Amino acid sequence: MTDIDPQEHLSQIPHAAALGLEMVSHDGDTCETRIRNAAHLVGDPDTGVIHGGAITAMLDNVSGMVARPEDMPREKAAIATLDLRIDYMGAADPTRDIHARAHCFKRTRNVAFVRAVAYQDSPDDPIATSTATFMLGTRNEPGKS
Amino acid sequence: MTDIDPQEHLSQIPHAAALGLEMVSHDGDTCETRIRNAAHLVGDPDTGVIHGGAITAMLDNVSGMVARPEDMPREKAAIATLDLRIDYMGAADPTRDIHARAHCFKRTRNVAFVRAVAYQDSPDDPIATSTATFMLGTRNEPGKS
Amino acid sequence: MTDIDPQEHLSQIPHAAALGLEMVSHDGDTCETRIRNAAHLVGDPDTGVIHGGAITAMLDNVSGMVARPEDMPREKAAIATLDLRIDYMGAADPTRDIHARAHCFKRTRNVAFVRAVAYQDSPDDPIATSTATFMLGTRNEPGKS
Amino acid sequence: MTDIDPQEHLSQIPHAAALGLEMVSHDGDTCETRIRNAAHLVGDPDTGVIHGGAITAMLDNVSGMVARPEDMPREKAAIATLDLRIDYMGAADPTRDIHARAHCFKRTRNVAFVRAVAYQDSPDDPIATSTATFMLGTRNEPGKS
Repeated sequence: MTDIDPQEHLSQIPHAAALGLEMVSHDGDTCETRIRNAAHLVGDPDTGVIHGGAITAMLDNVSGMVARPEDMPREKAAIATLDLRIDYMGAADPTRDIHARAHCFKRTRNVAFVRAVAYQDSPDDPIATSTATFMLGTRNEPGKS
Repeated sequence: MTDIDPQEHLSQIPHAAALGLEMVSHDGDTCETRIRNAAHLVGDPDTGVIHGGAITAMLDNVSGMVARPEDMPREKAAIATLDLRIDYMGAADPTRDIHARAHCFKRTRNVAFVRAVAYQDSPDDPIATSTATFMLGTRNEPGKS
Repeated sequence: MTDIDPQEHLSQIPHAAALGLEMVSHDGDTCETRIRNAAHLVGDPDTGVIHGGAITAMLDNVSGMVARPEDMPREKAAIATLDLRIDYMGAADPTRDIHARAHCFKRTRNVAFVRAVAYQDSPDDPIATSTATFMLGTRNEPGKS
Repeated sequence: MTDIDPQEHLSQIPHAAALGLEMVSHDGDTCETRIRNAAHLVGDPDTGVIHGGAITAMLDNVSGMVARPEDMPREKAAIATLDLRIDYMGAADPTRDIHARAHCFKRTRNVAFVRAVAYQDSPDDPIATSTATFMLGTRNEPGKS
């Protein structure tokens, strides 16, 4: 079975497609995505500030990309998000690209811990950072909790 | 100056529009939104499970709706999201409506604390819950942090 | 095997004992603890403000009390804390009692979600609130992650 | 006015003293503390696992140490903790030292963001990590929220 192409995967998610989210790289436990020129995401023309929800969606999305262990086949990799925390530190300049990079920094048998950062110039000057926890070998399914 | 209509506000946010997010009610510190029949948000046709990002976006969005104190005029209400935490407890049934309800349960001079819940049957059987913190009288602006 | 008495359990934890933490009630998914007259916890005599760490420890402790399902025997109930988030909303008056109440509001097969609140007058006027996630059937063990 | 000695500050906090928390270093935006040989903190003799509350208290405490900007005099540095999130990834070996290191990685005019890690061998193999948000120029005071 051929794995789904990650960029194709992104474009099938309606609100990811609406954001214009692009896959930059995906190498095992690390993934980077990008929104080019975010002018279409300005929430309020008076202030020129990008709607915060765009940053939330970027971090949520890129974090999920690295939760699955590389050696686990996609069709067996039932994954449930347990929680997500985002700290917002600044606002994005809508005339430039926004990047989001995630790294799975710890795995136990059942849980994956992922940190991500959204930035423009450098990950050291973040727009927002996040931590997410995923449970492996299970799945968020209706009526099965 | 006339206040912006909340439903109109929602439809101007590209990824909120992509989700089909609708305003149900907005009464001071409490707001409720809805996605009718979420079949268009199923991430993986094999499992029929809605993409978790849709729930994240709903909770993020509805929480921001109640951060501004009612007696503060919109044009003066500079608001910055400080952080957001979401706990995911189950998955949504895509054949039914999804609701998200937010309540601002505490305000200090500078900070508003908001809890929200996404649900189908009842808020007591949540799909996900969240807590968000907003700072009032400031704004996430590029280069002004 | 007799279950450990909860108050006895509290007094065996050095920093819980140092706080003067008392068990008030423990009924299934809900638990309440108390610190009587918190004057001994004032961090800075100039301000008369209780050290925030006391509130953190109260909420952490009371949340753990309700993670184990009532029908699971203690000796089989391996429980690992996954995460804890605390929002601080005000300060405690050190001349009065501080209460902390936890409620396990959702269980899935593997995970328990607990909310807690620290307060003086009423849970509706919180000093701090928290959300914690626990994994059941596992244990935080050294070198076994 | 002489600044309070940080080690002295620690020993005045009852539950920090009960934990045996020691200051290792404090250099501007970074602080490190330690608990030597944590055998006295084992919660359950059967499992030899340290009570999770000890790790919570270490991270809470070390994070507060770096919230105040170095160039702000202590007597003017009213600081309120807004929130704290801890992710627990493993358990501590009670026969060895536990370290906790905090770093203030972002400041805006009003808010300081602090990350901390508790570890034994290396910060890259964490027992737990945390993120905390502090508001500067205000204070958690009773009845002043």
